[in-house]
Amino acid sequence: MRQKIRMGMIGGGKDAFIGAVHRIAANMDGLIELCCGALSIHPETAVESGKMLFLPENRIYLNYEEMIKKESELPANERIHFVTIVTPNFAHFAPAMMALEHGFNVVIEKPMTLTLEEAKQLQQKVEETGLTLCLTHTYSGYPMVKQAKEMVKDGALGKIRKIIVEYPQGWLSTLSEREGNAQAAWRTDPKKSGKSGCIGDIGTHAGHLAEYISGLKITQICADLNIVVEGRTIDDDGNILLKFDNGANGVLIASQIAAGEENALNIRIYGEKGGLEWFQHEPNTLLVKWLNKPTEIYRAGSGYLGDFAKHNTRTPGGHPEGLLEAFANIYRNFALTLDAKLNNETPTPQMLDFPNVYDGVRGMALIENAVASSASEQKWHTFIV
Amino acid sequence: MRQKIRMGMIGGGKDAFIGAVHRIAANMDGLIELCCGALSIHPETAVESGKMLFLPENRIYLNYEEMIKKESELPANERIHFVTIVTPNFAHFAPAMMALEHGFNVVIEKPMTLTLEEAKQLQQKVEETGLTLCLTHTYSGYPMVKQAKEMVKDGALGKIRKIIVEYPQGWLSTLSEREGNAQAAWRTDPKKSGKSGCIGDIGTHAGHLAEYISGLKITQICADLNIVVEGRTIDDDGNILLKFDNGANGVLIASQIAAGEENALNIRIYGEKGGLEWFQHEPNTLLVKWLNKPTEIYRAGSGYLGDFAKHNTRTPGGHPEGLLEAFANIYRNFALTLDAKLNNETPTPQMLDFPNVYDGVRGMALIENAVASSASEQKWHTFIV
Amino acid sequence: MRQKIRMGMIGGGKDAFIGAVHRIAANMDGLIELCCGALSIHPETAVESGKMLFLPENRIYLNYEEMIKKESELPANERIHFVTIVTPNFAHFAPAMMALEHGFNVVIEKPMTLTLEEAKQLQQKVEETGLTLCLTHTYSGYPMVKQAKEMVKDGALGKIRKIIVEYPQGWLSTLSEREGNAQAAWRTDPKKSGKSGCIGDIGTHAGHLAEYISGLKITQICADLNIVVEGRTIDDDGNILLKFDNGANGVLIASQIAAGEENALNIRIYGEKGGLEWFQHEPNTLLVKWLNKPTEIYRAGSGYLGDFAKHNTRTPGGHPEGLLEAFANIYRNFALTLDAKLNNETPTPQMLDFPNVYDGVRGMALIENAVASSASEQKWHTFIV
Amino acid sequence: MRQKIRMGMIGGGKDAFIGAVHRIAANMDGLIELCCGALSIHPETAVESGKMLFLPENRIYLNYEEMIKKESELPANERIHFVTIVTPNFAHFAPAMMALEHGFNVVIEKPMTLTLEEAKQLQQKVEETGLTLCLTHTYSGYPMVKQAKEMVKDGALGKIRKIIVEYPQGWLSTLSEREGNAQAAWRTDPKKSGKSGCIGDIGTHAGHLAEYISGLKITQICADLNIVVEGRTIDDDGNILLKFDNGANGVLIASQIAAGEENALNIRIYGEKGGLEWFQHEPNTLLVKWLNKPTEIYRAGSGYLGDFAKHNTRTPGGHPEGLLEAFANIYRNFALTLDAKLNNETPTPQMLDFPNVYDGVRGMALIENAVASSASEQKWHTFIV
Repeated sequence: MRQKIRMGMIGGGKDAFIGAVHRIAANMDGLIELCCGALSIHPETAVESGKMLFLPENRIYLNYEEMIKKESELPANERIHFVTIVTPNFAHFAPAMMALEHGFNVVIEKPMTLTLEEAKQLQQKVEETGLTLCLTHTYSGYPMVKQAKEMVKDGALGKIRKIIVEYPQGWLSTLSEREGNAQAAWRTDPKKSGKSGCIGDIGTHAGHLAEYISGLKITQICADLNIVVEGRTIDDDGNILLKFDNGANGVLIASQIAAGEENALNIRIYGEKGGLEWFQHEPNTLLVKWLNKPTEIYRAGSGYLGDFAKHNTRTPGGHPEGLLEAFANIYRNFALTLDAKLNNETPTPQMLDFPNVYDGVRGMALIENAVASSASEQKWHTFIV
Repeated sequence: MRQKIRMGMIGGGKDAFIGAVHRIAANMDGLIELCCGALSIHPETAVESGKMLFLPENRIYLNYEEMIKKESELPANERIHFVTIVTPNFAHFAPAMMALEHGFNVVIEKPMTLTLEEAKQLQQKVEETGLTLCLTHTYSGYPMVKQAKEMVKDGALGKIRKIIVEYPQGWLSTLSEREGNAQAAWRTDPKKSGKSGCIGDIGTHAGHLAEYISGLKITQICADLNIVVEGRTIDDDGNILLKFDNGANGVLIASQIAAGEENALNIRIYGEKGGLEWFQHEPNTLLVKWLNKPTEIYRAGSGYLGDFAKHNTRTPGGHPEGLLEAFANIYRNFALTLDAKLNNETPTPQMLDFPNVYDGVRGMALIENAVASSASEQKWHTFIV
Repeated sequence: MRQKIRMGMIGGGKDAFIGAVHRIAANMDGLIELCCGALSIHPETAVESGKMLFLPENRIYLNYEEMIKKESELPANERIHFVTIVTPNFAHFAPAMMALEHGFNVVIEKPMTLTLEEAKQLQQKVEETGLTLCLTHTYSGYPMVKQAKEMVKDGALGKIRKIIVEYPQGWLSTLSEREGNAQAAWRTDPKKSGKSGCIGDIGTHAGHLAEYISGLKITQICADLNIVVEGRTIDDDGNILLKFDNGANGVLIASQIAAGEENALNIRIYGEKGGLEWFQHEPNTLLVKWLNKPTEIYRAGSGYLGDFAKHNTRTPGGHPEGLLEAFANIYRNFALTLDAKLNNETPTPQMLDFPNVYDGVRGMALIENAVASSASEQKWHTFIV
Repeated sequence: MRQKIRMGMIGGGKDAFIGAVHRIAANMDGLIELCCGALSIHPETAVESGKMLFLPENRIYLNYEEMIKKESELPANERIHFVTIVTPNFAHFAPAMMALEHGFNVVIEKPMTLTLEEAKQLQQKVEETGLTLCLTHTYSGYPMVKQAKEMVKDGALGKIRKIIVEYPQGWLSTLSEREGNAQAAWRTDPKKSGKSGCIGDIGTHAGHLAEYISGLKITQICADLNIVVEGRTIDDDGNILLKFDNGANGVLIASQIAAGEENALNIRIYGEKGGLEWFQHEPNTLLVKWLNKPTEIYRAGSGYLGDFAKHNTRTPGGHPEGLLEAFANIYRNFALTLDAKLNNETPTPQMLDFPNVYDGVRGMALIENAVASSASEQKWHTFIV
């Protein structure tokens, strides 16, 4: 890279959770520089947070409109290359659209928007402008997830027949949203979160992971979304039967009331010749199962891995890398892509390997289709985008 | 016990699989004596198998009718107390009915019969005769499964909210039934196996386990049964959404085309206060998860376990017991129950803790309801017995 | 086999632990029949225990001398083929010697005797008589241990360079021998247990496992035996550096004060090309590690295993077999060997694959060498037999 | 913090391994800024590496003497606060001493120096100057290691009785130092690496971990260091018996010829009441074992953890953090300590919780004592510092 890529952050003030994760991810490889922020809708918090992050005072903005406008007026060699949007779901679309309109690339938290309609508008704007939008489906940043994808693509498993993906969490087992848990509060509020709670928040991760690794697309679903904890107004749990475009069947289970679970995202993919199993809590291991041979333990950092896995680790085997590195892989690939484009070069497939606006549209479609299917008495619901 | 319980075996000749397992289970604790057998429909095999098992020549029978008749004519202190039926599904009902009619108790492989109708007839006959029928849903014989059941019953988890049970196998990933695999051949032949392949063979185990541990009953299902390997005529794979009688939701996944899996039966049960996880490949461990405390690893043979778990282990912690011991637990409890009844005593709850004719009826109902639901375009199918 | 092999048991009355395990192991495969016993030195217990085991009254003996004498006077087709000695260590030698002198084969618990000198006398008697003595080093009966041995023998790992074997237990973390724990009481009493507590009881298992799998012999040791819990008079813990006859180095760790451990026996063997890892709590798995390839998970019951592993499982992969099956493998191989010898046939290598009198001598040598080394200020002590 | 802490790097040019890890660790939390470097002894590499890291040209130095001198002449608000030394062992002492003499704090790779004598000189200089020296024993940066330490300190396990610590690696199973592996080349060269290979490189990590968690000090050792791969001149493997200052016994095993192992560092600590187990490959889990209760799985990011563990994670449970975060914890605590000292505040115990010059001296003492013990015929060698 020829210069550090310059970032401005929208949301992510001092008490936020995911904003700090984004900053760590962006910092990690020394390729990206946080240059400005509109870190909170509360002016005091915005300023205080900016100072804590060592931002220059004139680039601590009080709202995203001001930030995008002012930054767009700075000289090219000073102004930011992209904005990162880490606000709750309902506040994704407007800043993303404005940023694109002002020529800024965008990193955005999932789910991409509040509605599928908004998502499609973003897609259109990205296509119009030629700018780059990156969606932080973190789990696809893990090297062993990339290895799994590459093995499937290379046909190691033969035709894929069955996919089971689960994301069990237990943190919403009680009405913690009424006990001062800010993360729980907005996620269980349909005005801020959207039509779905659990499927929107973590079901989209599971759905993305299944499509990302398998290279398949969901074509039909049969959803059973549940409000398990009394007093909620949107789903905190869901089970979905799946059909994929090659005929494979599958199951997607997401729950936030699976008491005692952390982020136990796991996926198993079965093909004609073998199967894959990956578990987020031990992300550096990929189990590769065979019909008549011993199961193999593929490990991150090993010499026998493919190019995509290798491109996305920093250390040899035995040095566990974790979620922050997976997140940083997304930022690094996004930054490398911007760098290539800034220099009129073609990004490599490895650089381009981060979730984008099309993944965002599919995620919003998953939410809307799941909600519709769950409300229907018909078994199979065609997955519409 | 005052005397060994005497057993006669139907099926289980020298090339059979499950018959040998039954014999090991019956032998293990020295409480049961194999006294006679109608071990094969091929006379030569029947005789040869009987000799290999050191049976007296006059009690090596050539068919079950002969065996039941002749044994019923022996003096009470010689004749068998029960028959064990280890033939393919289609050959369960007739010998079971005849045995009951001649006053013999019965152990029978699952699924109990070929049809739900037959199962109900057996239930009626058992109720009429007061005899005991034991169904070998092996996995419910594991001590940590019993511990799970006891903890749920005692309210350790609070109200149960969600149950995920899976039984993935890979051994039918190819058309092995056409390559001389006898086990595969009859299981994939609806005439011998019944309406369902995968759900009948292993889905019933999963369903039983879920109901056994949770103490709940399935009330509604939404089934997606699949014939994945081309050329088959009955399902080799299935995914089923569940509703239980307390409102809990669930998922049952069974597959025989999950390439690379052995008998990876596992269950996770989530309640208001915590969750349980058990995995058949490491059966001596039960994970107990809590909302705000560390997950606990309960281990078979430990002093802190409940009465049912303790009753069903032979050794202290650290001496792994396996499937054959789980199987033997079923036989031992069945034998202890017979012994109590023979002596006009009331069997204890621990003795009576083995799958019975009612479990057999529910298993057959699962098969018929799953097949009906899968064929329907309606989402939810009421579980009818 | 042409007839059941007949067994008489010495020790193992109703409150004993290991006697019951021996009976289960002997029962399991239906090849061995318990015909008589001298089950306790307390006459009442002896009789009561014999009745519980359905022994005929005239073959319930009150001491081993009577049993051996009387049985030797029975006709050949009635009298037992072997005695099983399951008394505490101090009461192994005399009945074993007497049994051999009267023409009976012997199964005996480890450690074989109270002293190395006794062990050598037994060896001489076995050689003189041509009878068979089987020592129940249970862990060598596991199929994946046999697989490990076969892989090492076949050179899969190249020359062996390093062996780490551990047997951590926690059950003697307190002075339970003073709180009515009978198992603890005799094991911590040098008069009953011998010169060593921990090394004798479990260190011998670890030492046997290392030599069994590797095919190597320990030639030098440097032992640090410890009495950790105040009030004991023999070691409850020990660490031993090892040298093997091919130059490999190693470590043997045994402890009964490793609080919270069950029977966490594990072994890792490293060669030029790869390594092996086996853990007794999950005995059906053998990890096979390679220099530049993924680690492989070998599983009991799989088609790709060698002849020895296959000979020692009863069920296909996914049906966990445990310690009782490992124990039963020893009994089964011993019984098959006796059967072959009774019929003037040569036992196969698989039949002969059980620990014998030579293993017993090496175990006693390990105890005596470890005690001597621990008492010495010299680093390396030559392992003398 | 009031300002970013400014760092200069010595070593760590573009082809180096550990330098990149240090930069990631320093970058991660946005508290430290890389301002200058003497990144290679090859001028071209030094310049190229500096440019790749976006260093200003005037702060890309060609050797450490120049860097320290020039930086010390810069105004206080520009010049670096500390140097990080990431050269091979033989090139640690001189730059560290010069940096301290010029008023710079120091971060240094382990082992701290080439000899114990050098280590003591550094200790003296640190004491004289009041500057801060941080030694990157990475593994002590993991939150669950800190949890273990806190639990031991709080007496959860009672008096510690036994410690087993192992660091098996397989990467030196062949003579890779002769096949162009630069990492292997200097580590197996006593001129660059010091008196010991394996014990110096990874045994010191194991020794530090044991003393760090237990709070005990090694007082006696009995070492068996080995050159396993023919052609080497320093140890590539070693087994050491330990005695600690409270009477506990232990074993330290380190190997670089354990074929198939990555960085399988693990430690088990047993006390009167319970035990702890931690394994570096799954660093977010700490097993806590009890005498008569289920083993507990403590997980990083959980609310029930102590202050030190909490201070050293960035995310809640279920977001695996890895080695780079452990490394970053060391840098972060070091930076927070510098910040406090720069502002005349007293660093908190959490801030001061990073390995320091005294740990460095003990590491060098471990090397020298192990080498001396291994060469001796006497069993126990008193650990001298």
